[in-house]
Amino acid sequence: MAMLTTERYISTHKHRFLDELKHFLRIPSISTSKEYAEDMRKAAAFVKEKILEAGADQARLIETVGYPLVYGETVVDKDLPTVLVYGHYDVQPAEPYELWNTPPFEPVIKEDKIYARGASDDKGQVYMHIKALETLLATQQLPCNVKFLIEGEEESGSQGLTQFLQDKENHALLQADVVLVSDTTLISLAQPSLTIGLRGIVYLEVEVTGPNRDLHSGAYGGAVGNPIHLLCQMMASLHDEHRRITIPGFYDRVEILSQQERDVIAQTPFSLSEYQESLGIAAVLGEQGYSTLERIGIRPSLDINGIWGGYTGEGGKTVLPSKAYAKLSMRLVPHQDSATIVQQFTDYLSTMAPESVKVNVKVVHAGSNAVVINKDSVVLQAAEKAFEEVWDQRPLRTRDGGSIPIVSKLQESLGCDSVLMGFGLDSDAVHSPNEHFGLTNFFKGMETVMAFYQYLTTSHVS
Amino acid sequence: MAMLTTERYISTHKHRFLDELKHFLRIPSISTSKEYAEDMRKAAAFVKEKILEAGADQARLIETVGYPLVYGETVVDKDLPTVLVYGHYDVQPAEPYELWNTPPFEPVIKEDKIYARGASDDKGQVYMHIKALETLLATQQLPCNVKFLIEGEEESGSQGLTQFLQDKENHALLQADVVLVSDTTLISLAQPSLTIGLRGIVYLEVEVTGPNRDLHSGAYGGAVGNPIHLLCQMMASLHDEHRRITIPGFYDRVEILSQQERDVIAQTPFSLSEYQESLGIAAVLGEQGYSTLERIGIRPSLDINGIWGGYTGEGGKTVLPSKAYAKLSMRLVPHQDSATIVQQFTDYLSTMAPESVKVNVKVVHAGSNAVVINKDSVVLQAAEKAFEEVWDQRPLRTRDGGSIPIVSKLQESLGCDSVLMGFGLDSDAVHSPNEHFGLTNFFKGMETVMAFYQYLTTSHVS
Repeated sequence: MAMLTTERYISTHKHRFLDELKHFLRIPSISTSKEYAEDMRKAAAFVKEKILEAGADQARLIETVGYPLVYGETVVDKDLPTVLVYGHYDVQPAEPYELWNTPPFEPVIKEDKIYARGASDDKGQVYMHIKALETLLATQQLPCNVKFLIEGEEESGSQGLTQFLQDKENHALLQADVVLVSDTTLISLAQPSLTIGLRGIVYLEVEVTGPNRDLHSGAYGGAVGNPIHLLCQMMASLHDEHRRITIPGFYDRVEILSQQERDVIAQTPFSLSEYQESLGIAAVLGEQGYSTLERIGIRPSLDINGIWGGYTGEGGKTVLPSKAYAKLSMRLVPHQDSATIVQQFTDYLSTMAPESVKVNVKVVHAGSNAVVINKDSVVLQAAEKAFEEVWDQRPLRTRDGGSIPIVSKLQESLGCDSVLMGFGLDSDAVHSPNEHFGLTNFFKGMETVMAFYQYLTTSHVS
Repeated sequence: MAMLTTERYISTHKHRFLDELKHFLRIPSISTSKEYAEDMRKAAAFVKEKILEAGADQARLIETVGYPLVYGETVVDKDLPTVLVYGHYDVQPAEPYELWNTPPFEPVIKEDKIYARGASDDKGQVYMHIKALETLLATQQLPCNVKFLIEGEEESGSQGLTQFLQDKENHALLQADVVLVSDTTLISLAQPSLTIGLRGIVYLEVEVTGPNRDLHSGAYGGAVGNPIHLLCQMMASLHDEHRRITIPGFYDRVEILSQQERDVIAQTPFSLSEYQESLGIAAVLGEQGYSTLERIGIRPSLDINGIWGGYTGEGGKTVLPSKAYAKLSMRLVPHQDSATIVQQFTDYLSTMAPESVKVNVKVVHAGSNAVVINKDSVVLQAAEKAFEEVWDQRPLRTRDGGSIPIVSKLQESLGCDSVLMGFGLDSDAVHSPNEHFGLTNFFKGMETVMAFYQYLTTSHVS
């Protein structure tokens, strides 16, 4: 029997690949809210089945303190390099629903893009890997060993996987030459890129309590500290007039990049006017003395992700509320330690709180440190060659503003290199209404992954 | 047939009075939310029926642009003084429901208090007037003419009544010697008081719009202005470090009280430590240089009544939201003009807004000016005598922090005196969970109203 080419195999099965992906996207596997617990298990089971159907030697669920991990494994030859593909089957909540043009869990393909929550982050990219494996096995061309580790809590703190990694007995199972992560973005279809840095993150919730009950703002207004005011005051004073974060010690360990490194960032194609136009804003706003790409890539940031308190319904209610809340997260850069930052923030807030209210800080996600990829590794070089082959263009090295908290933990636990080979675009609207993933990104992503396996094995053998 | 005394009549019908009041309190007549429109009409019809059953000459609904007014009238003799009783059949929203010990619209009597939304504000007090009329008519002792004007939009801006008053042809119907309002509080059952001043109010909503969609806070955080941050910043800067309101021109027309007037306020029985303890706060917070009673009674204030934006659900979502909102109200003192204040606020906010966001101010309630009662009027003296007779104690004259926006409009339209004879207590939890009204307040309130009618007629005749 003549061996099929991978191109032939993909073009034959293309429609089935997309139908299966739609099935995956229909499962509302939102990990932050307990009401989706059953859907979370459905999504995990789906991933396991598809890895098996792709022809893997084995696939199974590993129970954790949270949602299960999906583990899969295909060993071609123990002497060949092993890639551990990391991804996640959980997705962000889909609110606000009213801003979606089509329902978030009813995927549709329009103008060569697939629209659904999780299309780009990260179900589309996980599925791309499963189909790459299927294609290589079906055409008998898999050049290395491949393991899968697909978790269900990336969007909610990776507690299960973190605890799994803390037990050193589990490290042997995951042992690999490289952790391959596809959960980041390209600059554009015309300009591929490889992420060589990711910011860390901590996520906190602040609760401000004033009077022991909601009060009438006429009878008490002006005399009793209003928790909303005081929360606003504290949140406002977290940045100074230069938009620098005011938490004492916050910048102590932040790396100062050389002019040369900053020059490299400045070469990344970027149009400020197009950026502003695409977001519908008249001006950007960020730390003084840094460009937009630097503010996202190399500087830490602090964002209030949610705020609530008092009456928020129709019309007016003259209430001076008992409580007000904010959720906030900080993005960390290399050398900042997440645990230290949480402590600094908590201490700072307690010094700011006036006597008339009580302030409580709750850690929502324990946090993770920033990730930096080894710039000289053969793994990164193999990835660059793969991009060059498939995209006819050498990929630029970029630093992403987002965080994949588990990447630094995997690196530290397994002691191997990582490569962040993501195929999304910044315009994919991840974490927003109308999330989507380009079909070109999906299929070129598959090709790039397959080429990477080949270059990795070649460099390993040589 | 021997004439019944009012005491005898009340004691005979006491239980029925309370049963009827419970019926009234069971109707969730919340005017701020359209979903209760049907209940609003039920409450209006109930009031009309009860005024007729009390024996009034007539009672009817007057349609408006909003909810109907209930008008009632009993003429004893055209040469006797006429009292216009103003009140409202609408109530505040009952959220947060989970903090109520018993459901807000299932009234219960516990320890001589009736618990329900509207028990004190204002259904209990309106009903007290209807039962006073019934008692005086049944015992053939009504000494003056009584009109009722019970509106349905006091908690949502009194739009219908305001427009009704703008048409001068309607003034003849409401013509009276005094507008009698029972929608305020006593210092305590041991120390009755009469309100001689009320603060005015304006109620606004602020909308801050940043990017045209919710963004991922990792990919954009630090580079794009966050509407929640900027809303917090603007809200925080509405007060300075002395807790004075920073809106330019805000204090221009605020009356400076004489030391003598401030001395009178200082004589009002008030324990700061008890006040703080009852509210569960370690310290009060307000404008520097003024006491708590002054901050509430004679100084204007600004409160954020609600705030919302971004992700407010369980767990964490790393969103940089497109929009953030706040509802806020300002309490005004005599000579401050509500329309000017709205303009000053709007102008101020537009100068504060950074280029990276758009700010929109919406007027929720058009506002009202403060109310000051004529301190030398015979009407006030009649009210003081009535209190002295029923409570064995001369009432103190106080200034309330709350607002009854329509009172200044009624005064201006009808050109007559008002008297604010309220029987609630500050501890009634109006606008809060577990609102209640004392049965003693209800029945002594009835007696005081009846005595007031008598003194008013006596002073009128003499």
